[in-house]
Formats: sequence, C-alpha cells, structure tokens
Amino acid sequence: MKTKKFLLQEKDIPTAWYNIVADMKNKPLPMLNPQTKQPVKAEDLYPLFSKAVSEQEMNTTDTWIEIPEEVRDLYKVWRPTPLVRAYGLEKALDTPAHIYFKNESVSPIGSHKLNSAIAQAYYCKKEGITNITTETGAGQWGAALSYAAKAFGLELAVYMVKVSYLQKPYRRSIMQTFGAQVIASPSMSTKAGRKILTEHPNYQGSLGTAISEAVELAMSTPNCRYTLGSVLNHVMLHQTVIGLEAEKQMEMAGEYPDVVIGCFGGGSNFSGITFPFLRHKLVDGKDIRVIAAEPSSCPKLTRGEFQYDFGDEAGYTPLIPMYTLGHNFAPANIHAGGLRYHGAGSIVSQLRKDGLMDAVDIPQLETFKAATLFAQTEGIIPAPESSHAIATAIREAEEAKKEGKPRTILFNLSGHGLIDMAAYDLYIGGDLQNYEVTDEEVKKNLSELEQIIK
Amino acid sequence: MKTKKFLLQEKDIPTAWYNIVADMKNKPLPMLNPQTKQPVKAEDLYPLFSKAVSEQEMNTTDTWIEIPEEVRDLYKVWRPTPLVRAYGLEKALDTPAHIYFKNESVSPIGSHKLNSAIAQAYYCKKEGITNITTETGAGQWGAALSYAAKAFGLELAVYMVKVSYLQKPYRRSIMQTFGAQVIASPSMSTKAGRKILTEHPNYQGSLGTAISEAVELAMSTPNCRYTLGSVLNHVMLHQTVIGLEAEKQMEMAGEYPDVVIGCFGGGSNFSGITFPFLRHKLVDGKDIRVIAAEPSSCPKLTRGEFQYDFGDEAGYTPLIPMYTLGHNFAPANIHAGGLRYHGAGSIVSQLRKDGLMDAVDIPQLETFKAATLFAQTEGIIPAPESSHAIATAIREAEEAKKEGKPRTILFNLSGHGLIDMAAYDLYIGGDLQNYEVTDEEVKKNLSELEQIIK
Repeated sequence: MKTKKFLLQEKDIPTAWYNIVADMKNKPLPMLNPQTKQPVKAEDLYPLFSKAVSEQEMNTTDTWIEIPEEVRDLYKVWRPTPLVRAYGLEKALDTPAHIYFKNESVSPIGSHKLNSAIAQAYYCKKEGITNITTETGAGQWGAALSYAAKAFGLELAVYMVKVSYLQKPYRRSIMQTFGAQVIASPSMSTKAGRKILTEHPNYQGSLGTAISEAVELAMSTPNCRYTLGSVLNHVMLHQTVIGLEAEKQMEMAGEYPDVVIGCFGGGSNFSGITFPFLRHKLVDGKDIRVIAAEPSSCPKLTRGEFQYDFGDEAGYTPLIPMYTLGHNFAPANIHAGGLRYHGAGSIVSQLRKDGLMDAVDIPQLETFKAATLFAQTEGIIPAPESSHAIATAIREAEEAKKEGKPRTILFNLSGHGLIDMAAYDLYIGGDLQNYEVTDEEVKKNLSELEQIIK
Repeated sequence: MKTKKFLLQEKDIPTAWYNIVADMKNKPLPMLNPQTKQPVKAEDLYPLFSKAVSEQEMNTTDTWIEIPEEVRDLYKVWRPTPLVRAYGLEKALDTPAHIYFKNESVSPIGSHKLNSAIAQAYYCKKEGITNITTETGAGQWGAALSYAAKAFGLELAVYMVKVSYLQKPYRRSIMQTFGAQVIASPSMSTKAGRKILTEHPNYQGSLGTAISEAVELAMSTPNCRYTLGSVLNHVMLHQTVIGLEAEKQMEMAGEYPDVVIGCFGGGSNFSGITFPFLRHKLVDGKDIRVIAAEPSSCPKLTRGEFQYDFGDEAGYTPLIPMYTLGHNFAPANIHAGGLRYHGAGSIVSQLRKDGLMDAVDIPQLETFKAATLFAQTEGIIPAPESSHAIATAIREAEEAKKEGKPRTILFNLSGHGLIDMAAYDLYIGGDLQNYEVTDEEVKKNLSELEQIIK
C-alpha cells in the first residue's frame, strides 16, 4: 500500500466550474414541457429550483461559471482531494498500465456528492428559500445534502428509496444526525407514493419514484424548492471541480490519461471526472477515451434507447432527452443503490449519441471482486458504486497487459464503502448474486414508454 | 461549517517518535514477572512481541526514536493530518474560547490506530515473523492492524470483544475485507475463553479477556507474535506523531493551547496528542493542562487505584503498574467500545500520580449530545470514543464563557463514527442511557484484586 499522492493547495481549488455545453458542437436537446411539447425555459424551472441553478441548467454559452466564494470556502473543508497513483493495485495486476485515481471519498460525508450539495444549498439560502426536499438512493446524496442544509440553516426532507432505506439504515442515521427528515419511498405522504403503494404494496422503490415524491412535496410546501444530486446539467457543472483538479494533478504526475473512467448512475461523478478531459477532445481534438461504468442490472447507456422520457416515475418532471430504460423501469436490488436510475442526463446522452464516449456494464460480483482487491492493495474500502469504475480500470489494465503496452488509466473513486459493509458482508459470505436485465424486459419497458410519451 | 485548516506537507511528518519516559523525573515503575515479582527485561518480552518494540517498551533514556523510512512511507497515505479551528462549534457555544482539533479520523481506517499498527506490523515483518494476533474492542484497532498486516503480508487473527462484535458487525466486515480472521471473544478457541464461557456462558466480553485469548494464540502458534493497540509504552511512543504534528500546526495558528484533551481507554490517542505538549511542561516548566476524558462507566483514572495489576483478564501478561479498576472489571456495554478497559498504561499512571495531568469522567448521554452538536457544526460524525474528548472540550469552553475569558483548547478527534451509526440510531430514538459504576462495585473489585495479586 505504498502510495504516491499528488496534492494541491487550497489556492488550487478551481474558481470556476466548466460548462461543457458551451464547447459542444451538437448541444443537448432541450427539455420539453410534457403538455405543450415546447422547450422548457429557465423561468419555467423557478418554482422547482433556485433561480441560479435554473439559469445554469439552461446555460449553453458560458464555458466557465464562477464558483461563489461561500461555496469555495466550504469546499476547503476537504478539497482539493488527492490524486493517487495506485501502485499496489498495479503490482497485484502485474500490468504495464499506470493507474491513477482521484479520491473523492475523503469528503466529510464520504463522497463527491457534496460538491453540488453545497452549491445548491448555497443558492437556495441566498434566494431566501427556507425549506428544501430531495430524494436519495444509496444515501450518498441525501447525506451530502443534509450536511449542506445544516451548513446553511435550511430545513430538509429526504425521500430515500425503500430498498436502500432497509439495506443502509446507517445512511439514514447520518442524515438524521445532521438534522434532516428522512422518509422511506414510496411513502404515504404524497399522492405519487400512495398511488404506487396502492398498485404495488411491496414495491421497494426507485429513484424515479422518490423524485416524484420529493418534487410533489416541494411544489406543495411554501418557500420550498427541490434539489437533485445527479442527471441535470447544473449538477454535472458543479461536479467538474473533480476533473479540473485531476487535470492539474496528472500534470504534476507528468502523465496524461489515455482513458478516464467514472461509474454511472445519473452521471454526476462521471461528468465530474471526465468533462474537463473531454474538453480537450472537443476543443483541441485530443485523443482520449472516456468510459461510463454502469451496472448490468441497470444498463441505460449500453442497452437503453435515446429518446425523451420523464426524469421521475410519476411524470412530474419535464421530458428529458436521455438514454433510458423507461421511467417505469424497476431495477434489481443491487447494492450500488446510487446506480439504480433509469436514465442518463441530457449532456451525457448527447455525447454518447455523438460517439464521444463509451460505456460498459459490469455484473455485481465483478464489482465486489474488484472492490476487495482494491481494498487489499490500496487500503480504502470503496463504495459499491465506485467499484464499477475500479472494475473497469482493472479490465483496461488487463488489456494493457495482454497487449504488453503501457496505458495511463484514470478513474474516479467517488466514495468510500464504510456505510456499505452489509453488502461486503454478503459478498464475503457468498450470498451476493448477479442480476442481468433481459432483452425482453428492456423492450417491453421501452414500448410501454412510447405509448406514455405519445 | 466554515473551516480553517492548518495543513502540513509530507516532509513535515515527524522523523522520530517522542519518548516521554526519557524526560520524566519519576520514571514509570517497571513491569513485574507475576511469579518472581522481578522487573521484566526486554528479552523477557521477545516471545510475545517483536524485538524492536520490546526494546522500545523498556527504553528510558532516548528522548527521540527514529521512525523507519518504510513506516513513514505508509504514514504518507494519510499523514500529516489536518489541525482544524472549530469555528462552527465555537459559534454554537457562543464562547470566547478558541477550540482546535487534530483530525485523526482522516486515516483510511478512520482512526489514529494506524499510527502504531503500521509500526508494529513493520517490525514483525522485518524480524521474519509471519503471523500476528491481537484483540480489539470497538474494532478501530483491529481494522487498523488488518490494514497494516495486509500491507506487510502478515497473517492476522483478531479477537473482537463480543459486545462490539454484535454491536458493530461492520467493523468485523472491514477486517475481513482486508483479509483478517475475526473471532468473537470470549471464544472456545483458547483455554482462557473456554474457562470464562464455562463460568459465565453469557459473558459479553471485555478487552481483558480478548487480550488473554490473543496472547494465548500467539504463544501457541509458530512464528507468531502478539500486538496491542494501547496501554503499552511502545504504543504511546508511536502515537506521538499526532502531537508532534499538532505542535507545528498550533504554531501556524499562532496560538499555544491552555489545555490539551484526549479521550481515554488505555491511553493511545491521549498520549499521542498530549505527550509532545507535556514535554514542555516537564522540560521547560510550561504551564499547560492536560485532561484525559474517560467514560463514567469505566473510570479508572478518576475512581480507580494505583497499583500493580494484570493487563488481561486471565493473568497471562506481566504485572503492570496502573490506575486500575481490577483486571476482572466487567464494564457496562457502552458504545465507546474502545474505552472499556480496566486500566491505564504505566506512563500515564505515573504522570497522573505525580499530578502532571487531570482526568474527568463523562456520562454516555453527554458524549452523544456533544457528538451531535459537533456533527452539526463541524460536519464530521465523531466516534463515540472521541466524543468524550469533544464533551470535555465543550465543558472547558463553557467554563471560559462563564469566566468571560479566552481559553485555547486543543483536543484530538481520534476517529470518525461512520461505523458506529447504530449507537447514534439509539441516541436519536431516545434509547441510550447512562451507566455509572457504584463505589461498592469499585471497592469490591479492587479488594478481590488485592487477594489475587498477593
């Protein structure tokens, strides 16, 4: 576990986020109002989000968007995060590849989610909003927002996907310790929740359903806004601090990545680590591969379709152009709760459509095998989500070995797994399994979707 | 949660540990062979520990002991750790005091225990030892040693106190993920375990019993040594990197602490943060207070007696001069599992006897109240153990407020509480309680002890 860390100073924390949309030749398609099928404007989002992030969501022209001083001040609690050369892992794989990872697990809540949580809470506070709502899958986003809400003195209600609420009770306790209200979703507290519980009393929840509930609560509570930890453009924007720091750190290491990898749920950490590198592909024509690592049980980028879909289960959100499995897709109960989302955000979907990035899908057991090897060689127990990126990095390193050629691999360690030990426990005991979606399921879901969207 | 961190560079990691014994006017009394009542010599310890740490244990002359390069290399994985000015906590307390904490929770296993685990594993490896054993309470030490054993390729067996094994199953999974064998103690795998289980079938375990089992296994396994995470002089020595860094960082902050606080189980993190500051009291006569914060349920420094006692339950260890509640003391099942030990190490006991340090005892509910306030104001969920130090720092800050005078307070945040959320869960639900030892219990236990030691 001998290590080489590349460390930046506080002054190196980026002063602006990178807005990749400004550099894209083909802009993402607009979000549509589901009734009128007209493009959504920033002001249409004001009832739902803070004005500042509504504007950011629609910004297609400014390449750099300034990070407010108050947000940078809070970033200083844990940023800049280390870039690490994974010598231990390289040695175990006996590979000529050089493997680097950006360690976002060092944040106080253990993941990258805080990068956007702080920004969103800040803007709400600044605009005089007193209450916020959100949904959370594995609980990483909910924990981050609980921290950020407390930091800015906002009241927070979190709808947590029921399967994660049960699998990860301690993420719930973390949110409660920070002072948030946590509700298992589907719940009886919203119309959307009551409807689905009436139809499917044992439904274990999905991010899509939890989003519906959080949106409904925000729309029906005075001075309240909704916040989201992934999928939307402004979240991708906030997360680019990861890649911007990593760029400088790779320079310190005297290398440039051949391939950059992020695990993929809705796209937040993936975009964070990859967009600043993709910039050089878009702007300077740099030859670099970018890979999204998604679970085999929820493979929207590898096996979904590019089309308009709702961001939530009940159909409260605008229509979003996405690679999707259908908003009514109910993913298997894998332990990477943060990757159980039916669609990809509109920026990533456009990049994927234009062939500017790749995607792979990884079975659950391969991710835990990778996670355990990483723990034993690098000393950090990774989150199940992040382990999809590790597994993909290992595949790349093994290919390099087969080819007998060097390869520089960078992946994002989006979070640690200390709250996910129940999943490791099952893996150690041999009680975890793979889940793969059948083609029939995907086809059935997507044809249902076509009926709904028409 | 606005923060001010004082950060050092890798080059500032200390190159030598501080051996306080060399500076003590009254040296700690020697350990005694329980049969002969003669002082134990370093070579008497060789069958139990690596030679290097056996020598360190007995070293009363060298003020500075060099840290091997291989150990410093592994320290670089997470050291130097930040010193933080707790502005958020100060504001919430509305106190004129300045509160600083050294953040040892940033280590890959989440606590300070790695400082000594790496050193002990390194020396074993260097001396050709292949197998090691240990005990663990809350699991912080076991997790640290699992990491260190894997880093140096040693096989490890950990006896985990049964109450913690049950309360904190995920610390067990962490150790297993790092490749260690974990056994709930008391177990049927040793004579010591079988004896106590026969007498008390439902005994929930104690560090004393787990030590007996780990020692017995080490003594009966070829090429195997025992390691300990607290109490002994060499462990205190290794932990002084904490205070040595903190000294430099307080200088960066332009302040000197009036009071330095560490929570107290066997003394490892307490000694780590305080000894380098105590040096100036011993050597330069500097006016500084040092406080050990122990739980009301296990108050050896505040209510125990100074006398020779065994370090373990079965009486396998040498007799150690300690403030003790008796080695057969069975502490209540508080959630600060790392503080459930019957005695204080010999250095600390001597310092206490000579009036060079203070001790306070804190009830369980006060620690969780302090922990929650700390989480909500500083953004880090602290370990139940560390929360004793936080509670003591809060008492000091409140006194400063009463006096209307400034006071500079430094405490050690020995670890985070992310694996201890079950305890927070109980606290949130109102299901935690205080445990206080009665005078009768203490007296009874100590009089039994007198019979045994005679």
